[in-house]
Formats: sequence, C-alpha cells, structure tokens
Amino acid sequence: MLTSLKRFLIGRPLKSNEAGEHKLNKLKALAILSSDALSSVAYGTEQILLVLVTFGTVAFWYSLPIAIGVLVLLLALILSYRQIIFSYPHGGGAYVVSKENLGVNYGLVAGGSLLVDYILTVAVSVSAGTDAITSAFPALHTHNVAIAVVLVILITILNLRGLTESASILAYPVYLFVVALIIMIGVGLYHIATGGVPASAHTPVGTPVAGLTLFLLLRAFASGCSALTGVEAISNAIPNFKEPQPNNAAKTLIMMGSLLAVLFTGVTFLAYWYGIAPKVEETVVSQIAAETFGRNYMYYFIQGTTALILVLAANTGYSAFPLLAYNLAADKFMPRMYTMRGDRLGYSNGIITLGIGSIILIVAFRGQTENLIPLYAVGVFIPFTLSQTGMILKWLREKPKGWILKLTANLIGALITLTVLIIFFVTKFTQVWSVLIFLPLIILLFHRIHRHYKDVGDQLRLESEHPPLAIEGNVIIVPVAGMTRVVENSLNYARTLSDQVIAVYVAFDRQEERRFEEKWEQWQPDIRLVTLHSQYRSIIQPLTKFIDTAQHKAKESNYWVTVLIPQFITKKNWHNILHNQSSLLIRAYLLYKRNVVVTTVPYRFKK
Amino acid sequence: MLTSLKRFLIGRPLKSNEAGEHKLNKLKALAILSSDALSSVAYGTEQILLVLVTFGTVAFWYSLPIAIGVLVLLLALILSYRQIIFSYPHGGGAYVVSKENLGVNYGLVAGGSLLVDYILTVAVSVSAGTDAITSAFPALHTHNVAIAVVLVILITILNLRGLTESASILAYPVYLFVVALIIMIGVGLYHIATGGVPASAHTPVGTPVAGLTLFLLLRAFASGCSALTGVEAISNAIPNFKEPQPNNAAKTLIMMGSLLAVLFTGVTFLAYWYGIAPKVEETVVSQIAAETFGRNYMYYFIQGTTALILVLAANTGYSAFPLLAYNLAADKFMPRMYTMRGDRLGYSNGIITLGIGSIILIVAFRGQTENLIPLYAVGVFIPFTLSQTGMILKWLREKPKGWILKLTANLIGALITLTVLIIFFVTKFTQVWSVLIFLPLIILLFHRIHRHYKDVGDQLRLESEHPPLAIEGNVIIVPVAGMTRVVENSLNYARTLSDQVIAVYVAFDRQEERRFEEKWEQWQPDIRLVTLHSQYRSIIQPLTKFIDTAQHKAKESNYWVTVLIPQFITKKNWHNILHNQSSLLIRAYLLYKRNVVVTTVPYRFKK
Repeated sequence: MLTSLKRFLIGRPLKSNEAGEHKLNKLKALAILSSDALSSVAYGTEQILLVLVTFGTVAFWYSLPIAIGVLVLLLALILSYRQIIFSYPHGGGAYVVSKENLGVNYGLVAGGSLLVDYILTVAVSVSAGTDAITSAFPALHTHNVAIAVVLVILITILNLRGLTESASILAYPVYLFVVALIIMIGVGLYHIATGGVPASAHTPVGTPVAGLTLFLLLRAFASGCSALTGVEAISNAIPNFKEPQPNNAAKTLIMMGSLLAVLFTGVTFLAYWYGIAPKVEETVVSQIAAETFGRNYMYYFIQGTTALILVLAANTGYSAFPLLAYNLAADKFMPRMYTMRGDRLGYSNGIITLGIGSIILIVAFRGQTENLIPLYAVGVFIPFTLSQTGMILKWLREKPKGWILKLTANLIGALITLTVLIIFFVTKFTQVWSVLIFLPLIILLFHRIHRHYKDVGDQLRLESEHPPLAIEGNVIIVPVAGMTRVVENSLNYARTLSDQVIAVYVAFDRQEERRFEEKWEQWQPDIRLVTLHSQYRSIIQPLTKFIDTAQHKAKESNYWVTVLIPQFITKKNWHNILHNQSSLLIRAYLLYKRNVVVTTVPYRFKK
Repeated sequence: MLTSLKRFLIGRPLKSNEAGEHKLNKLKALAILSSDALSSVAYGTEQILLVLVTFGTVAFWYSLPIAIGVLVLLLALILSYRQIIFSYPHGGGAYVVSKENLGVNYGLVAGGSLLVDYILTVAVSVSAGTDAITSAFPALHTHNVAIAVVLVILITILNLRGLTESASILAYPVYLFVVALIIMIGVGLYHIATGGVPASAHTPVGTPVAGLTLFLLLRAFASGCSALTGVEAISNAIPNFKEPQPNNAAKTLIMMGSLLAVLFTGVTFLAYWYGIAPKVEETVVSQIAAETFGRNYMYYFIQGTTALILVLAANTGYSAFPLLAYNLAADKFMPRMYTMRGDRLGYSNGIITLGIGSIILIVAFRGQTENLIPLYAVGVFIPFTLSQTGMILKWLREKPKGWILKLTANLIGALITLTVLIIFFVTKFTQVWSVLIFLPLIILLFHRIHRHYKDVGDQLRLESEHPPLAIEGNVIIVPVAGMTRVVENSLNYARTLSDQVIAVYVAFDRQEERRFEEKWEQWQPDIRLVTLHSQYRSIIQPLTKFIDTAQHKAKESNYWVTVLIPQFITKKNWHNILHNQSSLLIRAYLLYKRNVVVTTVPYRFKK
C-alpha cells in the first residue's frame, strides 16, 4: 500500500540509463534555476528605499547610483561565474572552487553556508509567497503556517518526481512573471516618455541630502544586494544541463543576468520617477503596478505572478541543495545516502532533507521568516567571496591566455562581495551573528563525519600481511523456550551446521527446571541441554552470561559461537503483540553488545 | 542510563522468592483497597439530592429512605462478596465467578466491563481530585489536564515500585479521611443533640411531595448507588493478602462495609438535618463541614483529605486491574505479557496499560470526566449482577449446608443490582449507550486473541506421526557489497558451515560488474560469485529474486538456504546514520516475507 502511494505521488521508478532524458534545455533551465534570482526583483528595490527613506523622500534619487552599483556587482558576478562554469564543467559552485583553490576548510565554509542557505531560501521564499497569497485572501491568514507547509510538501513531491517534470509545471509562472514585469516597465516608460507622469513626483538627481554618510549609502547598497541572491544556482547545477553542458549553462547564465539587470533597473527607475516611498502595507512593485495600470486586471496579473514566483524561488534550492549535498557526500563530508539516486533519478535524500529542514524553520518561526533575510544574504555572500578569491588564486597559479583580464574580473568581484559582507556584519550584526555559531559547528560535524568514513575505510581495507585467524569450528547455542515444533525445527537445522549444539533453557523456578530436564532427556537425548536459573525473571541476563563463558572457551580453540534463535512469524501483523518479542531483544543485544553471530530461523504459522 | 533511571524510579529488582514479603496485612489492605469505595461518600449523597432538588427542598426527606435502600444494597453486596471470598479463595471477582457458574461469555462480559471500568475509575477519580486541588488554588486551573496526567504518572510509578511500598504512602490519607469524617459526623450529631441546629432547617419526614413518582425515586436511588462502586475490589485482590487469605480478606471487607455504612449514613443524615441543597460551586460535604465547624482549619482539613482520597481512589484500580488482566491472560483472552511479573514483582504491564489508558481518557476529555460517572457505575453493576447470579446457580447446584440462607442473600443482591442496572439504562441511556458498543467489541477481541493462542498451540505441538523432513545440507548465500575485511570475515565463517557458499553482488552498471568479477576471481577463487544487475538501483529486488530461485532449487534436494549478512557494528551510535542500513532492511524482508534463515555476522569497528 505504501508502495502504491509512493507510485501515485512520484511516478514509476526510472532505469539508471534513462538519466540522460531528464536533462534540461536552456529555456527550461532558465525557468528552473533563475526563479530565485528573478524573484529578488520583487524586493530588491524596496530594500534600498527602506534605508534611504530615513532621510526623507529627498534621498530617493540615490537609489539610481546604488542600483548602478548593484548592476556592476551583478556584472562582476555573472562574468566571474561564467569563468567558473568553463573552469569547472562538472558542476563548480562555491564548494568545489573554494576547496580546490583555497583548501578543504574554505570549501567546507562555502559548502556549509550554502547548505544552510538553501534551507533558508525555501523557508523565506515560501513564507513570502504565502503572505502574498493570504494578503489577497485575508480569510486564510490564520492558516499561514499550514499553507506554507503544504506548499513545501507540494514542491518536494514535484522535485521527487524528477527535474524536467517539475520544470514543465514550474516554468510557466517564471515566464509569466518576466513577461508581466517587462510589460509593466514598457508601459511605465511609455507614460513617462509621453509626459504622462509629472516630473514633480521625484526630486532631481543630485539634490543634496543632509546627514547621508558613505557608510549609510553602503548599507543601502548592501540591502540592495539581496536582489543578487540566487545567481550562483546555475554554476552548481551544470550536471543537470543538456550537452554541451558548460556552453548551455553559460548562455543560460547570461540570459538570466540580462533579465535580472533589465527588470531590476526598470523597477528601480520607475520607483524613482513615480516618487514611490516604501509602505508597510503595500510593496513597491504593487505601487508601481497600481500607478502604471490602475487597479485593473493587469495589476492583479502582476501581483499574482509575483506571489507565484516567490513560492517557486524555493525551487532553486531544490535544484542546488541535493547536488551540493551530493558533492559533499562524495567527498565523505556528509552521509553517504546523499549520493544515492531515488526512483526518479533525483537525489531524493537531499530533496527530502531540504523539505524537512525548511518545514522545521517555517513552523519554528511561525511563518514569520522575514528576519531571516539578512542571514540568508550573508549565507550567499560568504561563498560568493570565497569562490571569487579561489578563482583569483587559480588564475595566478595557472596563468592561461588572457589571465589578467580574467583575474581583474574576479578581483573586482571579490572586493565588492567582501565589502558587502563586511557591511552586513557591521550594520546588521544583531541579525547575522548566529552564522558565527552554526557555521563552525557545521564544519566540525563535516570533519567528524569525514574522520569516521576514513576510519571505516582503514578498517575495511584488506590486509595481506595479517590474514585473519582460521576458524576451526562452530559451537551453536540454541535458546529454547519449550518443547515445540519451532524448537524442533531449529534444532534440526543446527545439527546440519555443527556437531556441537547446546540448547539453553532459562527456568524461573527449580521444580520447573528439573521437570524440563527430565522431559528433554527423552525428547532430544543427543543434544546437550543447559538449564539456567533466573531469580529476577529475566531471560537475557543469564543467557548472555552463559554465552560470554561459551565464547571465552571457544576462542581458545579458534571456535566461533553462533546463537541460533527460533522465531515464529505470525500470519497477521497484529498477532505480534500477543507474543513477547524477546527474540528481537535478544538478537539486538547479542549483535550490538556482544559481537556474537546470530542466526534467526523463521517458523511461519499457517493460521 | 535508561536502566539507572528505572532503578531510581521503581527501585532495585526483587527476586521471585521475595514475593511473600509483599503481601498486605488487614489494615494496609483496608487502606489500599477501599479508597475507591470510601471516596464515593464524597459524592454519593450529593447524587441523590441532585435528583430530588428538582422537586424543591421539600423532597429532601426522601434522601433518608433512599439511603436506607442503598444501605440494604450495601449489606447484600457485602454478604454476597463475603461468600465469594470463601468460595473463591484464590481471587474471585466477577470474572472468575461468572465464568465458572454462568459460562465463558458471561465471564468475559464481567471481565471486559471491569477492565474498562478500572480505567474509568482512574480517569474519573484523578480528574475529580485535581478539580478539588485547583478549586483551592485557582491559579492552577488552566493546568488541570497536566496536573491530572502528572498525578496518574506518579501513582503508576508508586504501583510499579510494588504493593506494600505504595500502601505505606497511600494508607495515611485514607485513615485521615476516615478520621476527619467521623469527627465531622460526631460534632454534627452533638450539635443536633444539644439543640444547636434548629429543626426548621429541614422539612419533616413524611411531608407529601407533588409529582414525585416511584420511577424518579428509583432514579435517585440509582444515583445514590454510585456510592457503592469499589466494593468488589477486595474480592478481586485476595492473592495480595497475607495468610490466611480468605479470612483476612473477609474481615477487611466487613470493616470496609461498616465504615462505608457509617460515613454514608452520617453524611446523608447531616445533609438532611442541616437542610443542605446541592450547589454547583460547592460540594455537599463542603457545606456540611462549613456548617459544622465554620471555615476554620477543620474545614480545610476535611476538604484536603477529601481531595487526597479522590486522587487515591485511583489506586484501587491499580490493585485490581493488573490481577484481572492476569486472570484473563492466564485464560488466554489477553496478551501473554499481562502474566509477567516486573522487577518489583507487580504485574507491570497491567499497571502501565492502566496508566496509559487513563491518561488517554483524561487528555481526550480534557479533564472533564464527570460525564463518564454513569458509564462507570454501569460498568460496575454489570459484573455485580453477573457474579451474584453466578453465586445463585452455584448454591442451587452444590446445595451446601445452610444454602437457602446463602442463596437468599445472593438472590436479593442480584435482584437489586439488576434493577439498578435497568434503571440506569432506562433513565440515563444517553450517557451509557456506548457500553452496548464497546463491550461486544471487547468480547470479540478476547475471542480473537483466544483463537490465535489456540491456533499457535496447535501448530507448536509436536507431532510424532509426521516428523519433519530431514535436512540434507545447506546452501549459504552471502550478499557482498565490496571486497573488504567485513566480507572476508563473513566468507571465512560461511566456509565452516557448508561447502556450498555463493557470494552475490548487485551491480548498478555493466562496467563495474565486469571489473568486480575480475577482481573477485583473484581474491576468492574458491567461492562462486553471482553478479546481478539492477536497473532500478535497488538491492533487495534482484537479491530476493535470486534467493527465491535458489530456495526453489534447494528444496528439491532437501537443502536449506541460509542468507548470511555481514553487518558492521559502529563504535558510536550516531555513526549508524552515516551508513545505509540496508542490511537491516534485507534481514527483515527475508525473514518476514520470504521465510529464509538469516544469519548476521557482526564486524565491530574499533574506532
């Protein structure tokens, strides 16, 4: 039944060699990998204005130079990641780039902060999308957490079904959002060009603002940089692309960068020209849309696609997290299970971990995940900085043709991202300090896991010098609870394995003990019976004591001890509670605590 | 760690032969077995007045004849149960008496309704006691459910520690309650005798009341009978008494009956003489105490001991439930685990079941268990009626000396209890109908369990006519995941068991498969390797398919198939999540679904 539910939810299992069919073409990849980055447009401009508004509307013209700064950073990131894609065609990403060029620990810092970041992405985006939905339908507002959790579960199931199938469903909202925003920007610019918007709505560029320091401008710039989260997704996901992978990925990256630049510039410019101030109850994009179209169907179209793309931004996390976890697991820093492909060829364990992690965050913060945004931005800029620094070292070391140009791009990128990072820590320390706690903990955990796998590898490796001691023979111990067909069956089996079979009976009183011994003598005269007396009504204690002694003796002559446990298999599951499950307990105890070989002989009841 | 927590909570384990030391003397038994019956005094009178008050205070004098009726019933019950104690000195109780005299199904009806009843007793008493506590400390009122649950857990732990130790702690409140009520009744009567209470407070006996029918009087009588719940406890618990068990039990029963009669009569008479009407916000006992002493320390003493005894009434259930469950389990109508003595020689599983059951009820009803009282009274009167009827048949069949007198006592008892039962069903059907659903379900379950044990017994019994087929030899299948020391270890062990060892490797791609076969040929040339190809990345599927085939072939020549699973035991528990637990899955699947002998060869990591 569980199996058919699984089939229904995620589809039939796929053969390993069907993997190629699930690769993404450029257009689908654009939709699936850039929803995170593009959705940032919905709040990037607003973040800048929120800092500037403290100086009054007169400071709003600064959003234009700040936006230019963000665009420069975007350009640097795109160029830098384009270089990463070609240098690491098997899926680079900050983890691989940092590890190879800066060393393992830097790689782990990048990898660890991205892993946490993807979980934050999902939680934050889905919560934001849910807010957008429940703003439209206020009756649903009390169910925010439940709706967000259901959405995460839906996205998780879609991703378990496999990449391309998710892409087909998830691509349209991204396209619609892009189309909707381009129409809005076009119509807005047309209004402005035809003089439909009075110039008095905004203060002219260059108006002096009292008290605005460079520090605060940088803070506004850092806030605006939250629009850039998500641009790294493509470089992590190169293995998902159709061949030729690096070229397709690079082209997709350029497309995404161009779209992001157009949308971000357009929204920021319209906001400036319309003289829009950030409000608590209405987003900047909503105000622009209302200003441009009035509150007609186009307005609702833009609001709807914005809500959708915010929810879908979560999907970027679902593409990137499992691949990053795969890379870390392949390097033995994470549990091996993250390297296994599921029925539909996705790395199911990573997908499920991400889903569960973000549901925990959503429930823990009761859907109010806005405070996590700075944390989330820091979590992106740490790997940004590390991977750019890694690329600088790579160029310095390898010095390929035209390396100075390449190095310059990465150097500029590294400097800007490092600056942004410093600004974040200086201006928003109260919101981001926790990174300094959990990141070291994660790195520590990575190392503990790595150490364990290394230890296991050492212990598993065959040694030709010290071959294990030969086994001379076996002593078989059969705990018996009575004289029944189950026991008879087990004894017959034991006889075929060894001549040394000992039956052990644990008696709770002396009388019973003697009676049992007498009857045994008649029933199985050729098998030695040992009766143990248990004063405390426990079977395991006297039994293990006996087994310990037997094992000690057996070891002297290189004999092995095998404990053979008769177990009956009931016909119906509920019957199990009618029988003491002591055989399970004994088996687990002997295996895990005593290192004894345990054989279970099933005896199936027919009714 | 778990073990030492258990030691701390319930004490060191006791030897089986220490059982005798834990028997109860009469005085302790009185305390431990009669708290349920005696606590009924706290609400018995009130239940009568609640019916009468619908006709105004003028009807209150009817409480006296009704109380006499209840006393007659009490006398009949005490005499009847005294006869049961001597007739069934090994612990009679309604289940045994009904089963032996009326037949198994009547016994199961009595047993089933008592089992449910004890759970109700605990839930209802503890909730009532909690109400009394939180009435005194209103700040705690919102934590009612939590307090009740903690109390149940405490009582459960006390009972797991063993009978006499609980008795020592639990006896004092019962004595205090009895002493407090006797003082109250004495002082009240003294006031009345010295003319301290005006006769105008009550209507004289015999005052005519308009509209009061016999039917409604019977209903008031039935309500008053709720004061009699708990009198059966002693006859169920005879094995807990010191020798001579029946005499001690009978004497304790008489003491309890006398105390109950005195307290119930006293409270009812004082309530009548003082002219007390039942109030929602104050109990009748509280009003009597306030009237007698004023609201001084004696008043609070009486209120406090009443609250305590209500909580402790639950303890009667803890003495009776495990013994009844033991009787039912010994007759194979309940799971065998209820016959096992725990570390402290109590029937721990019964105690724990009762605790969990009542916590579920308390949580489900959010501590408002008052509506369960009629259900609980019905649950007592069904076994009352059945056991008295059983005794009648017994006397008719055996006709011992003086049987007519004995039969008369039981006949009167049976008729009264049957009448009460009918009145309950007629007048309170909406509150008690559920008995008619769950009782048949429980009986059905008893029979299903009995049937299963019988089937198992049949299948376990040794057949001398059809000895099982001789086993000619063994085929050992070792699933291998690589060429490691763990595998080497398992193969060396397998060689000692049989000449026919087959290693099975599941490969996910063809190349890997060939490479593995070549390396194997060099490593273990004497062991046959079978490689299976898995297109769906599943190990279990191809493996079981192969094992099925092997088993089919082996059966033809009376060979058995043993699957030998190498399993490494990690040094620390958390390491387990770093390894795919496929060996556990394979083992469970083969054992439960395929009926294959499974041997687990542990390999312990040293670091």
